[in-house]
Amino acid sequence: MIKPPYIETIGILGGGQLGRMLALAAYELGLRCVIWDPDPDAPALQVTNNEIAKSYDDEAALKQFIDKIDVAVLEFENIPCELVAEIEKVKPVSPSSKTLAIVQDRFQEKSFFDKHKIPCAEWCFVDSKKSATEAGKKLGYPLILKTCRFGYDGKGQKKVHSDFAMLPSWQELDCKPCIAEKFIPFDKEISIIGVRKKNGEFAIYDVAENIHENHILDTSKVPAILSNELEEQAEEYLITAMDKLDINGLLALEMFVVGDKILANEMAARPHNSGHWTMDGARTSQFELCIRAIIGYPIPPCERTHDVLMKNLLGDEIKEIHLPFDLGFEEVRPYIYGKTEIREGRKMGHVNFLRKKKKEKKAFSHIFYIIGH
Amino acid sequence: MIKPPYIETIGILGGGQLGRMLALAAYELGLRCVIWDPDPDAPALQVTNNEIAKSYDDEAALKQFIDKIDVAVLEFENIPCELVAEIEKVKPVSPSSKTLAIVQDRFQEKSFFDKHKIPCAEWCFVDSKKSATEAGKKLGYPLILKTCRFGYDGKGQKKVHSDFAMLPSWQELDCKPCIAEKFIPFDKEISIIGVRKKNGEFAIYDVAENIHENHILDTSKVPAILSNELEEQAEEYLITAMDKLDINGLLALEMFVVGDKILANEMAARPHNSGHWTMDGARTSQFELCIRAIIGYPIPPCERTHDVLMKNLLGDEIKEIHLPFDLGFEEVRPYIYGKTEIREGRKMGHVNFLRKKKKEKKAFSHIFYIIGH
Repeated sequence: MIKPPYIETIGILGGGQLGRMLALAAYELGLRCVIWDPDPDAPALQVTNNEIAKSYDDEAALKQFIDKIDVAVLEFENIPCELVAEIEKVKPVSPSSKTLAIVQDRFQEKSFFDKHKIPCAEWCFVDSKKSATEAGKKLGYPLILKTCRFGYDGKGQKKVHSDFAMLPSWQELDCKPCIAEKFIPFDKEISIIGVRKKNGEFAIYDVAENIHENHILDTSKVPAILSNELEEQAEEYLITAMDKLDINGLLALEMFVVGDKILANEMAARPHNSGHWTMDGARTSQFELCIRAIIGYPIPPCERTHDVLMKNLLGDEIKEIHLPFDLGFEEVRPYIYGKTEIREGRKMGHVNFLRKKKKEKKAFSHIFYIIGH
Repeated sequence: MIKPPYIETIGILGGGQLGRMLALAAYELGLRCVIWDPDPDAPALQVTNNEIAKSYDDEAALKQFIDKIDVAVLEFENIPCELVAEIEKVKPVSPSSKTLAIVQDRFQEKSFFDKHKIPCAEWCFVDSKKSATEAGKKLGYPLILKTCRFGYDGKGQKKVHSDFAMLPSWQELDCKPCIAEKFIPFDKEISIIGVRKKNGEFAIYDVAENIHENHILDTSKVPAILSNELEEQAEEYLITAMDKLDINGLLALEMFVVGDKILANEMAARPHNSGHWTMDGARTSQFELCIRAIIGYPIPPCERTHDVLMKNLLGDEIKEIHLPFDLGFEEVRPYIYGKTEIREGRKMGHVNFLRKKKKEKKAFSHIFYIIGH
């Protein structure tokens, strides 16, 4: 727990939009931020006078980072575990290197799901021609081949349609260690985000329903239209995962709904894109919850206050943001991340469209879309 | 109007909490901030990688500031007019040097009120022993003597109770140019804040009722309990002032309610402490409105959504902030400014206590106070 004079410094590893929004939440609590990202123009580095624009293997940068901070938080998974292990020798880090090792590696992650009876699509580990061929035989086609490490937004994965294509696909993934996953024709994609403190205290947001375009999150909607049974199931899986990972911060669990079952897809131990609705549609945002958890503040009320449709502004869609800005929609909150370069599919910002929370779960109609598409 | 790729840089003159909150609002819109304040540990300087911690008469700093920014905004009045005049030769500044000259000098300000028929307490200019004595004769006692420049939070003013005390009081104010003002036993203090763009487009927030302790704002409440006639009167005065000053940004007008009349007290052409309730109790905050006005975005809806009691955390009160944090009040939003040193009466943060907007205007009961007092 932070003591007077209330000057605590949060170290943020990663300078993307999640780091930026974490920093802005920290600033409202009077905290300071040291933000480390190799890119000097990263969105989060713009919002601190304590920026470290050095490679993650720079030892002087590590010393500087550790000296200045009280606690550290990661904004994405692809921070080296060894770096986190070094930092946590002296300062608390969220997530821990032990958790990070699981969530940054699909083999570890799937093994974790299996071990703790969180159902997921049938899968096999692939690290050789032999195991690749065997995976195809065991799972059947189509299947999805995913590199164990460094995959995001559809990068590092291939859909494989036949035995014939299996080896070439693995070779296209540079013969890296992979998991092969049975292709699941799911009904919908959902995610659930929770916060948990070391003492076991936790809170969970409502389930969001997600729509991806080209493997990139395009839209999240709360409430997800889901039976109470499935909602409780999703919560149960998240609680199990938070406890078994001994989470100190946030955990997001992405899942597929397949008939009357839920299958876990992947986890993230950080703020999650599908939780951006919480910035306007919940009592407390995921960013503030994350900061509060890691500095030991109690968890404040964070229940949902609105129905929300969160639309990512991908690539050129950012150019259309003037329209909703300007037309003065009643409950539209735009967020722009300050990225200089527009690239196809790049997350440039997002918009929360809010409406009064309905008693009955009611899906957002697509009329609500005013950007893109 | 900002064009793609949406990278506009706001220059903020002054690094206090108002500058900090302006910057955080700008960041949500994807903008960048250059913040200039002589104090390297100023609250706003912590939240930008573009900090200028140089004296306001530093010419190299001025060049650097002008080169980097697209528009500039002041967070307090006591920025030299000459500096603003230099900047506005090349980049738009809010407020303009012309407006600043009026709002930073009480003689100019009172003359402005008189000229535009905005009623205020009877007053006289004092710049000599003779004019001091004459002021006392004209206004009677008690009266308030206020230095024309650099007064804030009760600094630079004296209540004078008798002819006998007039000259010594003026001498205690270093014989600076002053205004003498008839002492008004007011019923309540109120303020009203509006935003206006160069094209005349404007919006006005609901009137707030303010409670000062030792001349420092302690609490603001919306709605102010006020007749519709007085509310309309307050709006009319604000609109007149915004138009006559050709405001491009915010204008706050502090007033006294005396019986069935309103008397203007002073103006600020920037975000105002009594408008912090807008951060949670209005569709759009005063900080976002200010930024949007100066960069030419249309003004979005900004009507009040809640009844709000805004409590400043003055000096040691910041130490008690853990209580409301921790007790988990349902609708309590704390903001801490990141100031290192606690001093008596210093504004360290504020808390917005929210309740559902009532149809009838209903005053906040003092039971609602949980900090200090």
